[in-house]
Amino acid sequence: MRNIKLTIEYDGTNYSGWQKQANTNNTIQEEIENAIEKVVDEKVTIIGAGRTDKGVHGRGQVANFNTNSRIPEEKFKYAINRYLPEDIAIVESIEVEEFFHSRYDALGKKYKYLIYNAPVKSPIFRNYSYYIPYKLNIQSMDKAKDYFIGKHDFAAFMASGSSIKDTIRNIYYISLTNCNNIIEFEIYGDGFLYNMVRIIVGTLIDIGRGKIESDSIPNILKSKDRKNAGHTAAAEGLYLEKVCY
Amino acid sequence: MRNIKLTIEYDGTNYSGWQKQANTNNTIQEEIENAIEKVVDEKVTIIGAGRTDKGVHGRGQVANFNTNSRIPEEKFKYAINRYLPEDIAIVESIEVEEFFHSRYDALGKKYKYLIYNAPVKSPIFRNYSYYIPYKLNIQSMDKAKDYFIGKHDFAAFMASGSSIKDTIRNIYYISLTNCNNIIEFEIYGDGFLYNMVRIIVGTLIDIGRGKIESDSIPNILKSKDRKNAGHTAAAEGLYLEKVCY
Repeated sequence: MRNIKLTIEYDGTNYSGWQKQANTNNTIQEEIENAIEKVVDEKVTIIGAGRTDKGVHGRGQVANFNTNSRIPEEKFKYAINRYLPEDIAIVESIEVEEFFHSRYDALGKKYKYLIYNAPVKSPIFRNYSYYIPYKLNIQSMDKAKDYFIGKHDFAAFMASGSSIKDTIRNIYYISLTNCNNIIEFEIYGDGFLYNMVRIIVGTLIDIGRGKIESDSIPNILKSKDRKNAGHTAAAEGLYLEKVCY
Repeated sequence: MRNIKLTIEYDGTNYSGWQKQANTNNTIQEEIENAIEKVVDEKVTIIGAGRTDKGVHGRGQVANFNTNSRIPEEKFKYAINRYLPEDIAIVESIEVEEFFHSRYDALGKKYKYLIYNAPVKSPIFRNYSYYIPYKLNIQSMDKAKDYFIGKHDFAAFMASGSSIKDTIRNIYYISLTNCNNIIEFEIYGDGFLYNMVRIIVGTLIDIGRGKIESDSIPNILKSKDRKNAGHTAAAEGLYLEKVCY
């Protein structure tokens, strides 16, 4: 069977997240599987690189699926898009080797996170950023963010209740820009625990508000205790930008 | 009576445009008037600086209204926002002198226009940009745009059927940037004819596709004939950024 790799963009606003669930049929995975099945006329299961949560957006999500269809690789995207709603699109489709696995083979992931920081919430960015009305100390956030770079045990920055055992991850870089009321983070690492990006950003916001000291990140990491980190930043500010192989 | 000036942001996606109309109650003007009336408990008419079309967005629309209410000027925005849907927000409210008129007193307006140029339409930017799948020659668009700068008779760049007599306008500047599949224009001038920004952008797109010569703008202007200019770019790419007084 052929193995097809898809690069996918989606507006996560109206979905219950990426992954198929028992109690809803409103997931991005299902929308794409249903569209592919109409194209290839076979039952299909796609494997996504990252299971984005309800409201989280995808700019460069990756998924792969097996098929007997003989459609040329680059034609899949147009054929599948014909059956997708306008808030999901396949932006690239290529054939990959038999054993390629979107999730297990990922060497790194890049996320973007947008905060809208102004006295009034933005109508245009309302579903595409996390609204923070409070004045933030950007300098202390910018200083604190660098503590995350490198190989650390991120247990304190994982949603409580996760069952993952190996909580060591390597953050290659994290950037912060602040322009026209929008604070933008880019975070690139070898992998991320459940809610890790959102807890990192939430902690940096709490530092910007003065609720957490800007030099306390090393101690929070060391504690491995979720309770010491900051709040979980909202889903609508998060974008899965790219998956690297 | 007091005269209150509002600066307004809105996502125009779900509205029939700014201006109140006989055959629809789905306008931005009405939403804001209804919200203000709930706050001040008087009948109110607001005067908007620009009558944006269906689907066009506002980042810095300005409107004013008269009221006997004694609410402190800066409190109006919070009070009115409480009654507005989440796709419209008052971002500033100040008291101005008696005869200030949002439209007649405007000395300049700044618009932004976004084109999304890629092989597949973007789900995230679908309502916030004009999707162009064709390859565009950005260099010739960039060269051609400068012909619009200065004082010209823009009759050829006005929607046919407009009854305006004085079609001379002054464009102070126009910029083009091209980054991550998004082509962004900023256009600042003393005033704009009906659909003028969208016809200017549509003409530049037609130049980018090679359908119109990049040095033909002076002749199109001279002709004063709408038929010689390019197509009207879509509403969803247009943003009223700022009104200057």
